[in-house]
Amino acid sequence: MQKEVTIAPSIMCADLCNLEKSVKELESAGLDTLHIDVIDGSFSPSMPLGINTIQQLRKVTDMKFDVHIMANDNEFFIQEMLDIGVDQITFHLETSSHIDRYINLVKKQGTKVGVALNPATPLSVLDYVLEQCDTVLLMLINPGFATDKNEQQVSYALQKVRDLSELIQSKGLDTKIEVDGRVSLEKISGLVEAGADILVAGSTSLFKSGNTLSENIEIVEQAIREGLKEEVKSV
Amino acid sequence: MQKEVTIAPSIMCADLCNLEKSVKELESAGLDTLHIDVIDGSFSPSMPLGINTIQQLRKVTDMKFDVHIMANDNEFFIQEMLDIGVDQITFHLETSSHIDRYINLVKKQGTKVGVALNPATPLSVLDYVLEQCDTVLLMLINPGFATDKNEQQVSYALQKVRDLSELIQSKGLDTKIEVDGRVSLEKISGLVEAGADILVAGSTSLFKSGNTLSENIEIVEQAIREGLKEEVKSV
Amino acid sequence: MQKEVTIAPSIMCADLCNLEKSVKELESAGLDTLHIDVIDGSFSPSMPLGINTIQQLRKVTDMKFDVHIMANDNEFFIQEMLDIGVDQITFHLETSSHIDRYINLVKKQGTKVGVALNPATPLSVLDYVLEQCDTVLLMLINPGFATDKNEQQVSYALQKVRDLSELIQSKGLDTKIEVDGRVSLEKISGLVEAGADILVAGSTSLFKSGNTLSENIEIVEQAIREGLKEEVKSV
Amino acid sequence: MQKEVTIAPSIMCADLCNLEKSVKELESAGLDTLHIDVIDGSFSPSMPLGINTIQQLRKVTDMKFDVHIMANDNEFFIQEMLDIGVDQITFHLETSSHIDRYINLVKKQGTKVGVALNPATPLSVLDYVLEQCDTVLLMLINPGFATDKNEQQVSYALQKVRDLSELIQSKGLDTKIEVDGRVSLEKISGLVEAGADILVAGSTSLFKSGNTLSENIEIVEQAIREGLKEEVKSV
Amino acid sequence: MQKEVTIAPSIMCADLCNLEKSVKELESAGLDTLHIDVIDGSFSPSMPLGINTIQQLRKVTDMKFDVHIMANDNEFFIQEMLDIGVDQITFHLETSSHIDRYINLVKKQGTKVGVALNPATPLSVLDYVLEQCDTVLLMLINPGFATDKNEQQVSYALQKVRDLSELIQSKGLDTKIEVDGRVSLEKISGLVEAGADILVAGSTSLFKSGNTLSENIEIVEQAIREGLKEEVKSV
Amino acid sequence: MQKEVTIAPSIMCADLCNLEKSVKELESAGLDTLHIDVIDGSFSPSMPLGINTIQQLRKVTDMKFDVHIMANDNEFFIQEMLDIGVDQITFHLETSSHIDRYINLVKKQGTKVGVALNPATPLSVLDYVLEQCDTVLLMLINPGFATDKNEQQVSYALQKVRDLSELIQSKGLDTKIEVDGRVSLEKISGLVEAGADILVAGSTSLFKSGNTLSENIEIVEQAIREGLKEEVKSV
Repeated sequence: MQKEVTIAPSIMCADLCNLEKSVKELESAGLDTLHIDVIDGSFSPSMPLGINTIQQLRKVTDMKFDVHIMANDNEFFIQEMLDIGVDQITFHLETSSHIDRYINLVKKQGTKVGVALNPATPLSVLDYVLEQCDTVLLMLINPGFATDKNEQQVSYALQKVRDLSELIQSKGLDTKIEVDGRVSLEKISGLVEAGADILVAGSTSLFKSGNTLSENIEIVEQAIREGLKEEVKSV
Repeated sequence: MQKEVTIAPSIMCADLCNLEKSVKELESAGLDTLHIDVIDGSFSPSMPLGINTIQQLRKVTDMKFDVHIMANDNEFFIQEMLDIGVDQITFHLETSSHIDRYINLVKKQGTKVGVALNPATPLSVLDYVLEQCDTVLLMLINPGFATDKNEQQVSYALQKVRDLSELIQSKGLDTKIEVDGRVSLEKISGLVEAGADILVAGSTSLFKSGNTLSENIEIVEQAIREGLKEEVKSV
Repeated sequence: MQKEVTIAPSIMCADLCNLEKSVKELESAGLDTLHIDVIDGSFSPSMPLGINTIQQLRKVTDMKFDVHIMANDNEFFIQEMLDIGVDQITFHLETSSHIDRYINLVKKQGTKVGVALNPATPLSVLDYVLEQCDTVLLMLINPGFATDKNEQQVSYALQKVRDLSELIQSKGLDTKIEVDGRVSLEKISGLVEAGADILVAGSTSLFKSGNTLSENIEIVEQAIREGLKEEVKSV
Repeated sequence: MQKEVTIAPSIMCADLCNLEKSVKELESAGLDTLHIDVIDGSFSPSMPLGINTIQQLRKVTDMKFDVHIMANDNEFFIQEMLDIGVDQITFHLETSSHIDRYINLVKKQGTKVGVALNPATPLSVLDYVLEQCDTVLLMLINPGFATDKNEQQVSYALQKVRDLSELIQSKGLDTKIEVDGRVSLEKISGLVEAGADILVAGSTSLFKSGNTLSENIEIVEQAIREGLKEEVKSV
Repeated sequence: MQKEVTIAPSIMCADLCNLEKSVKELESAGLDTLHIDVIDGSFSPSMPLGINTIQQLRKVTDMKFDVHIMANDNEFFIQEMLDIGVDQITFHLETSSHIDRYINLVKKQGTKVGVALNPATPLSVLDYVLEQCDTVLLMLINPGFATDKNEQQVSYALQKVRDLSELIQSKGLDTKIEVDGRVSLEKISGLVEAGADILVAGSTSLFKSGNTLSENIEIVEQAIREGLKEEVKSV
Repeated sequence: MQKEVTIAPSIMCADLCNLEKSVKELESAGLDTLHIDVIDGSFSPSMPLGINTIQQLRKVTDMKFDVHIMANDNEFFIQEMLDIGVDQITFHLETSSHIDRYINLVKKQGTKVGVALNPATPLSVLDYVLEQCDTVLLMLINPGFATDKNEQQVSYALQKVRDLSELIQSKGLDTKIEVDGRVSLEKISGLVEAGADILVAGSTSLFKSGNTLSENIEIVEQAIREGLKEEVKSV
């Protein structure tokens, strides 16, 4: 059976002054998962959007909310997101001393839980965490620099996805791999082949200028299909 | 000559999913100043909206942006707001060791600068600051709790506005007094009489349910006129 | 009518390995208020006793618990004390950005609230706080150094008590003044005369070696009576 | 030769208002090691007992003090415990940048040293630490939540003990494995079989209601014997 | 009797690669006090020189060391300076919760103690501190920006010196006033007239290019004499 | 082809009051790399020298500056060193959440980049970092304690150098290994044999009393040659 790859458009690429309209366009185009970055300005020098916006948005769309917390105080933001009612909450291991506690906090509510890793963070931090998670999000650029055009995807992106994919298979798990950061039209097939399950799609793919949204979706889906074919071959 | 009182609607009461439309309604109604709260989730347990939203909003409206930073890292947020290009930047003295530096950072760019005080903060912190500022913002509820319906305006609100007004007059200054927190239809005339120049208007005044926006503006303006009359009398 | 002065023995001078017995002796001796220091090891390098001990102690004595929090995270400790059910909660202004919020948190539960000041902290921090409080606690030694025999009461102790007493009277309030730190048999009458209402009594008064507890109580009460007589004269 | 397993009753389950009596009962029952949790309220939202209590307790019992520091400022608490004179000091690696320094600080005084790991912390942090330690303490619940009845032992507890045991054996070391968190009567034999040497015993074993202390000791010892038998078999 | 004004050259203007020679030139020119800035890079974004340098310098000159700590951890740096053996230690009130403790720490060693205030800090923080100090240092620019040529002396410099001078006189004290920040040849007489006792002399006075050191000393001394004359007149 | 080993004298052993002369002696003796420790007093309780000193020193010598930052705020110090213009910047992984970002910050300027590890830090933190770096610095004593004579090189020093050397070879990289901490005359050959490329040389080697600088250089070079011979044999 073919595995499924999810395209999760980043809210940071939406029209933030007309969010309802912008998100409904994504929904109409058949996308069902919205990637939402919550940054506190301290973990990373950026603060894309606020909690109140997410709260109001929750009421006007049926898309799944895939929330990626990049903050120092994970507990506060996890609790806020649980109160709003989102579908998946992912937090960074670099800022967490009490990882197991946060994972349980999320799971207890029946919400999916993910853990996020900065580019340089080793996979050994997952040793006793992997089995408890639904998703591992690999940052492929430095968190908080998504809007900095000079910021490149790290050179070891593919290798890290492959390493994680092998780790998951070696443990017989089906944890999802989410990739975030310059997941461009050119790189998607490679990332999917390497093992990515969820693609955070931004200005270099779904929102790439020059094409319409549906044209970009078409290209992304084509790239995913190619990636999956190669993955099958390589297994 | 009659002094002018500014009504600054709080962006937190706008429709955050349709911000352009919502803000243009305010603009059409003749309001020219938008009060924008920037909270980092750490100084106060709240994060109403993000930097990127403000950045995009700057391009679709001509309203003046009156930004109120409630954060631990004032320097970061001041710099971000200067980059966006806003009209006034207010930061809290409780989180600032280098107050004079921040004031200069703002003024050097030709932007107006304000300092904000929590309810319990004494006015003595203004001793060498008042003359350097365009505005002093007095929080009349605890910062970050604007959306908590149980949060009341502090009992000493009027007294503090009066004390500050006297202090400003005693120094022969024309620093503006901005009041923020449950500035309700019932309290506006009193606050104006006590010396308030800028009213942050939210759910208990401009956005009070039951009336249309223009009806509420009418009531607010009437309350201001009453407050000004009393002020004249009391001088 | 004569004002009443409370003797509040410090739990730090009790036998911490036989706390029930030790506290019941105080109770039997007619003392009705127990002063409990909660220090986090970070605000001050000391941690006299834990939360769980206070919780268990609450069940075995009817004494009033007068809790003095010396900590960086006031909100956490205030909440813990409210959960236990104590009679008064005092926290330090030096570690509080959100003073008004903490005061309300305590008062909302029907618990008395106090604010504590380090020796060097000016009374101007009380400008908009005094009216909201039941008690102001003046530290007369540096907090966390109660067990350091070399630590002396600050030379300006009496002056600060007098200044606060005048401030309270000038505002027509009846806020209590609590004094803490080397409140010795020799100093009690002076402190009472200066305006102290609650005496935190430790190793230099109630627990002074050489005398029995009741002998010390007798001496303390005599010193209080002298202090009150002088106070009456000086009014 | 049969290895020895130590039962270390947790002081948090003692009668904190009658600590001397409570600890002497443990001593009389033949237990020689007391597990003492020192939490600062910040690393974990809990503060079971204070430094002064431990200091006084040191004078009234001959039990060995096995201190488990859960704090942000390890250096402060290590120094305080060294001043009191305890038998083993264990600190968390998650809050330590200068692990080697803290280990030496303890060893220089002739005191045993342990390092503690939160449930999700990987064993790779021990790579250059294991040989320097007397003990590795594995937290099997989240630290600071011992009194929360809903807190369960983590599902990977046995696996982690086994992994650590293999690591110790592969290096030819005899580092002790201490297990802490819901070490219940039902789980003891399994944990011992997996390699645990020191059992922190609390409300689910030694202090289990329904039985007397000696009955519970008997059941624990029986479980240990079963665990040791299985361990021998599996070697 | 004429009061004495001290010229304290700032070590930051010395040749840091040839410090012994540079300091001996100052000494030979008849200056007996060296102002030494210790900044930690965190309180202010600057770190002029290290502790080890001060330690070695102590051995090669007889000048008095007037140390100005600009740091978050006052206790650490105070202790280091006491270990080296300096003549005066000044620390900032903005970073100190335990002011009285730090003052005593310094005085107990027979070292002079000063407290420093940022430009915007009100004098009310001195209410219970002034009598305990030898010196109050007023920062007239923002701390850590001495080498930034664009940084101007604050406009309220003279006013603040005058206010402090009056406060000291009103209490009948002889606390010294030290002024630091763009204390230029043009401003010295005014500052002395206003009440300054110690002048931190840098690139705009003693080290002003174009003149030799002795020429600059001559001009500074002349300015001081003028300032003192005016002061006498104005009394 | 023989690999080259660099001797990097530590600036902390130079005459800090006559730095120009001291550094020129090193330069004249044929040494071309100066190891410069930048410590903030917070990461480690030490602050050897300041930024301004390094800035001035840059102008009077042609030696390569090999800067080792031991600080909490890596970004600030990296930027300061880039502004000065140094040859290599090394920062600690223990204080870095955004490792990849810092590495790029340095490399973008054409400066060499290193990462430093405390003694107890496992090599797994290098998994995705090693390929991005020019150098890995292994601390062989606890950072900030170089001047504490009681501080010994850790017992596992050689083992860790060997492990890192194997890791580098297994990945086919030529990352340099720098060793820092009690790199004494007796230990140099062993460390070089184990794989060290850069030796931070201080009071136990290059600056060992009893010998002249050139005598010590001679002994160090001889020890290096021996180490290299053994390395060749062992390959």
